[in-house]
Amino acid sequence: MAGNKPSIPRGTRDFNPTEMVRRNYIFETIRKVFINYGFLPVETPAMENLDTLLGKYGEEGDKLLYRILNSGDFLSGVNEEDLEERNPVKLAGQICDRGLRYDLTVPFARYVVQHRNEITFPFKRYQVQPVWRADRPQKGRYREFYQCDADIIGSDSLINEAEFIAIIDTVFRNLSIPVLIKLNNRKILSGIAEILGASDKITQLTVAIDKIDKIGKEKVKEELTEKGFTSEQVEKIEPFFEFRGNTKEKLNFLEEFIKDSDTGKKGIDEIRETLKLLNTLTFTNEIELDISLARGLNYYTGAIIEVKALNADIGSICGGGRYDDLTGIFGLPGVSGVGISFGADRIYDVLDQTDSFPGTIRENVKIMFVNFGQKETEYILPLLIKLRENSINSVLYPDTAKMKKQFSWADTNNISYVAIIGEEEMKNELVTLKDMVSGEQVSITPEALIKKLTHQA
Amino acid sequence: MAGNKPSIPRGTRDFNPTEMVRRNYIFETIRKVFINYGFLPVETPAMENLDTLLGKYGEEGDKLLYRILNSGDFLSGVNEEDLEERNPVKLAGQICDRGLRYDLTVPFARYVVQHRNEITFPFKRYQVQPVWRADRPQKGRYREFYQCDADIIGSDSLINEAEFIAIIDTVFRNLSIPVLIKLNNRKILSGIAEILGASDKITQLTVAIDKIDKIGKEKVKEELTEKGFTSEQVEKIEPFFEFRGNTKEKLNFLEEFIKDSDTGKKGIDEIRETLKLLNTLTFTNEIELDISLARGLNYYTGAIIEVKALNADIGSICGGGRYDDLTGIFGLPGVSGVGISFGADRIYDVLDQTDSFPGTIRENVKIMFVNFGQKETEYILPLLIKLRENSINSVLYPDTAKMKKQFSWADTNNISYVAIIGEEEMKNELVTLKDMVSGEQVSITPEALIKKLTHQA
Repeated sequence: MAGNKPSIPRGTRDFNPTEMVRRNYIFETIRKVFINYGFLPVETPAMENLDTLLGKYGEEGDKLLYRILNSGDFLSGVNEEDLEERNPVKLAGQICDRGLRYDLTVPFARYVVQHRNEITFPFKRYQVQPVWRADRPQKGRYREFYQCDADIIGSDSLINEAEFIAIIDTVFRNLSIPVLIKLNNRKILSGIAEILGASDKITQLTVAIDKIDKIGKEKVKEELTEKGFTSEQVEKIEPFFEFRGNTKEKLNFLEEFIKDSDTGKKGIDEIRETLKLLNTLTFTNEIELDISLARGLNYYTGAIIEVKALNADIGSICGGGRYDDLTGIFGLPGVSGVGISFGADRIYDVLDQTDSFPGTIRENVKIMFVNFGQKETEYILPLLIKLRENSINSVLYPDTAKMKKQFSWADTNNISYVAIIGEEEMKNELVTLKDMVSGEQVSITPEALIKKLTHQA
Repeated sequence: MAGNKPSIPRGTRDFNPTEMVRRNYIFETIRKVFINYGFLPVETPAMENLDTLLGKYGEEGDKLLYRILNSGDFLSGVNEEDLEERNPVKLAGQICDRGLRYDLTVPFARYVVQHRNEITFPFKRYQVQPVWRADRPQKGRYREFYQCDADIIGSDSLINEAEFIAIIDTVFRNLSIPVLIKLNNRKILSGIAEILGASDKITQLTVAIDKIDKIGKEKVKEELTEKGFTSEQVEKIEPFFEFRGNTKEKLNFLEEFIKDSDTGKKGIDEIRETLKLLNTLTFTNEIELDISLARGLNYYTGAIIEVKALNADIGSICGGGRYDDLTGIFGLPGVSGVGISFGADRIYDVLDQTDSFPGTIRENVKIMFVNFGQKETEYILPLLIKLRENSINSVLYPDTAKMKKQFSWADTNNISYVAIIGEEEMKNELVTLKDMVSGEQVSITPEALIKKLTHQA
């Protein structure tokens, strides 16, 4: 083993103090807004029963679940035949009962159903925890990453949609990330598909619409034909390829297009009402209707929300939507919810790439006392405690090392002041204080030192 | 599935808002002291390579590791013979490369070795993360629980031991938990065993010494004989059974007893120097030398620390010690460290049992606006945002439900004020504000409302 540098699993990360302080800044900014909007904290275990997780994220999702090997003699229940067959899916089902959570939404749905008798609905909860996915690691995609979720469950009011959009605007204003907030409604997509007589091909349809800007009208038409759309259907959808306009114009155009679909019209009404509520507020970021937005089609039934950073090419940094039956899968139907999820890791990358972390967030040590030896240490310790009691983060260099080494340590650790208390200082009851930024050096009483640093804490 | 209430794995827990706020109070209290003493935050992934974890916690520990099944065709590398043999240990080694971390100490040692070129020693880090153990769940013992660790690595100064004891005293003072801080030194234990000529039986010896108060002198002597100690050895150790005294007297007695062991004498010196440093400070809690304290004998080489709550019978709530070669297992020998770990879950139980959570820690919602409908909502939203911008945690009840239901929701959620803005209030630009504790109701301008609640925030 010796000599072999240890490592961590691919797709996972260590966070050093600098990264931690920056990550905590993101978490705290989001958390503060959640709390400010009346959300309450909840946490669920990292491990869930596989029953809870399987089948909730599609076939692809099932494959990305991390399974935990049962303890003890995990093979005892496996029959000979299955073992010989070497079918990994079949065997995994017999030797693993638990898995790591894949997101925070399904565990929350499970939580709501399990604790329904203790919860007073509508229930506003937030949750900031890591999730795990056995995905192929690549730039910006990790196997362990954090989600910051807020959901309101047990209320179908559109005020909730409006509030979530206000939350998104506030969080990104506070983080100084300019964003575009994209809004859509699953019912509009259903309406379009219904009008085309292609309700079964809603995903292919939205995927195609999404590509207009990238591959052009003709290519999209080809793709639709390949996917089994009739020439009549393709013709009917063509006006979409031409249409340009602001949100209001888009809504009018859409309304005309789907006037024969009740579902579609309901989608338009929901968007209109949400925007009307938002009109009473002042926004920093733009909100745009984007009918190609089609995330979470498996479970979203109303609003679909997605946020893109305008200053970095990094994909979605926040998303969410309305789900009318998330808890149904756990036996509690008819409870509508709406929620959003901030991707802390991508937000980190945006702030990092654009050099936008505030300089003030360093959770650093204010002052280091130089260590000259036993006698000085015994003299310094009570003063050190007094500084700490005044909320001044302070250290005594633990070893009696060379001055140069001690100063260099203070420097590397971004410590603002170095205090020197030697023979002379003890005699005069003074501290020699060096400002590590300006290089300035003063002689000061312990009381004045505390006062000086308290004002800066 | 429907009708079957979903559940979570045995030994794991959901945390509801009340529990979360209380847990965060504990984490924040500990974290604040760590930061105040100059420790910097670090986090490591939940999953580690099994190479990193195996063999670090003894044979029993290996069994308690949660292993993660390899993704994809995990059986492909397993040979026919091993499969037929059905040996779970052998197979687990082939189908799992990763496991969940068992504590924060070993991952930290791995971190230090892996990142040694980026670290400036001495390195003071703290880490607050969950750990997982496949232990038999019982009262107060969970399969997922949090550890709050702080370590200084790369310094063998006894100032560190003294500082950790000061941290322990401060944390429990801040949490209002009276504790007894027990201190021992591995070198003293080694010295005693050396004097007895039983260096190989140090564990049995300390286990026996620990039982004196519980089972009495004669029973302990019997146990030692059973464990293979000679009658001469038992006789030699007998003075320990009789000895009573304070820490100073204990030290003098011990010093005499182990005067022929250099290691033992070094242990005494270390304790004496640590206590001398601590003598310069004022403590809330008592520190006691306890030579029966023998936790972590596998890796501790100097100080051993353990903390017991005086107001609850719950075992150790914090522990730690000095390890001279923790990073040696990963190929970096000769780096001494010392650290402590707070058991947040047990601390929770102590605070809960003794009803000692402060009443002020509720992270609650300050004010709820009653929802009368669309018109009122559009009027209220801008005011709601203004309150939030003034850091007043505020909600609008999302649905136009009956007044009684809305008030009852406010009540259940411990919301301090309910604001009523109906037809009349909109006309007069006033808010009817009800104090949910006193029941008092006033008419107030929006500006006065913000001022009133800001002062309380």
